[in-house]
Amino acid sequence: MDSIHKGWFSERGELWPGQALSLEIEEVLHDVKSKYQHITIYQTKTWGRMMTIDGNIQVTERDEFSYQEMMAHVPMFLHPSPKRVLVIGGGDGGVLREIVKHPEVEQVTICEIDDVVIDTCKRFLPSLACGFDHPKVRVEIGDGFQFLRNHPNSFDVIVTDAPDPIGPGVSLFQRDFFALIHSALREGGVVCQQAESIWLDLPLIRDIVGYCAALFPAVNYGIVQIPTYPCGSIGLLVCSKTPGADVTVAARAPTPEQQALLRYYNHPVHAGAFAIPQFARVAVDEAIAHGRSVGTDGIKVAEEKSS
Amino acid sequence: MDSIHKGWFSERGELWPGQALSLEIEEVLHDVKSKYQHITIYQTKTWGRMMTIDGNIQVTERDEFSYQEMMAHVPMFLHPSPKRVLVIGGGDGGVLREIVKHPEVEQVTICEIDDVVIDTCKRFLPSLACGFDHPKVRVEIGDGFQFLRNHPNSFDVIVTDAPDPIGPGVSLFQRDFFALIHSALREGGVVCQQAESIWLDLPLIRDIVGYCAALFPAVNYGIVQIPTYPCGSIGLLVCSKTPGADVTVAARAPTPEQQALLRYYNHPVHAGAFAIPQFARVAVDEAIAHGRSVGTDGIKVAEEKSS
Repeated sequence: MDSIHKGWFSERGELWPGQALSLEIEEVLHDVKSKYQHITIYQTKTWGRMMTIDGNIQVTERDEFSYQEMMAHVPMFLHPSPKRVLVIGGGDGGVLREIVKHPEVEQVTICEIDDVVIDTCKRFLPSLACGFDHPKVRVEIGDGFQFLRNHPNSFDVIVTDAPDPIGPGVSLFQRDFFALIHSALREGGVVCQQAESIWLDLPLIRDIVGYCAALFPAVNYGIVQIPTYPCGSIGLLVCSKTPGADVTVAARAPTPEQQALLRYYNHPVHAGAFAIPQFARVAVDEAIAHGRSVGTDGIKVAEEKSS
Repeated sequence: MDSIHKGWFSERGELWPGQALSLEIEEVLHDVKSKYQHITIYQTKTWGRMMTIDGNIQVTERDEFSYQEMMAHVPMFLHPSPKRVLVIGGGDGGVLREIVKHPEVEQVTICEIDDVVIDTCKRFLPSLACGFDHPKVRVEIGDGFQFLRNHPNSFDVIVTDAPDPIGPGVSLFQRDFFALIHSALREGGVVCQQAESIWLDLPLIRDIVGYCAALFPAVNYGIVQIPTYPCGSIGLLVCSKTPGADVTVAARAPTPEQQALLRYYNHPVHAGAFAIPQFARVAVDEAIAHGRSVGTDGIKVAEEKSS
């Protein structure tokens, strides 16, 4: 199957063999290769503008709100008072746009490795890139690993808007990355990471849930509907440094003013996202139990043995 | 975009313009035109066998369980003692397979208009069609409308496994159909109907929720993930004849033996399915309020005026 054929773009990916979502396109608005990746903006016929990176759909204007709102508001409403926030990746600006809807926030830092993504979105996806315009937003162009190393005990909430675990993205789904996240969070901190699909990536999900259960006292995995991602949904891995926390229950509900700005998130949706299909529930619960039982030392020993 | 191109099947539909899910196929196993529709069975590369009707994906072996389990178990676990059950449509047998997991059931009747669907599934989709083998199952080949008219006050649970609202399917989404469902249900009866996608069909959903709110004391709309349906999810319209009922809370939980047979449904998933995105929540709540305010007389008056 060709990626462009008779006016249709088709998304093929090695993580989802044998299936492809196709969207009808009217025009290629922009096509650029950065140092890191190949970025394309399409005008689709029924899903608004779309950005692909290396041929994978990142956002469409019609459904991006579900992902951005859940990535931002699930951790933000879990924290009683999120003042300092870090976004890793997320160069389209959508997660920023949501985070600044919380007046408690004093500063949001975004650490995006590829400034071409930011520049492209500012030009072609202003309804997302408006997130960069807020005076509380500070932009760092660089590597998330290095940034985390340089900022121990610094953030109340971290959102990792990670790419798929292929090529350079693989490192964002490994134990060392979660250990860095853990140390960059302040006491009571919360992290939300894009965590792939139960329909495609259950072995990976088991791994990362296990790593996090060894590091954090509270861990869970929720699901967000997003029609233009493979299989129509994506996972959120959510962890809290607060012992005994239940990440399925928001600490605060949106105010009426906040709720009026939201199209996907509401208080029941927060809890409902963690009510996941039985086959995934069993896998996630087993991974949490395993992670807890081995602990961080256990993971280190296992890694040394396997290396 | 062609429906078959270089070994890929693509699903195009007038209800979802500008988008198509494509699955790689290995072989067309069967292709037949019945009196009503065009039925095809494919061997896909990564989703097992697939049945399409008139070019629309009905089931794949890999993800059918989510739809069948939720269509069956949401209404079945809502009813305190479901003895007589009716399935309208559902000729693949999958909903039957789930319903007979409830030992309370005395008889399940399936009313399917097209016996060619049943015969095709018995031959090519035995993991679904096994539902027909149970001694409690009784098969009626015929029109659901006529069957409902002939069976007032007869069923504890009705599952309407309806096709999309195009052509003959349109009538299954109109007020008269829900009035017939209402009269065919016994006191305390529950209906679950396939009710399309919040991402594609919100105006239709508002209509049918409104019709049902005028007829039933308890109405709600839930969502099921199913990767191979358009936008990756589908809706369930669930209504109960019990005043004050909350259809989001199951009356009974699965026994451990039942749960062991289920891959999607569990007690939290039942409730979580009704925690729907804010844009859909607002639309559904407004439709319920409107349906309640006009009542059945109001709908009749409105219809007479418009005709």
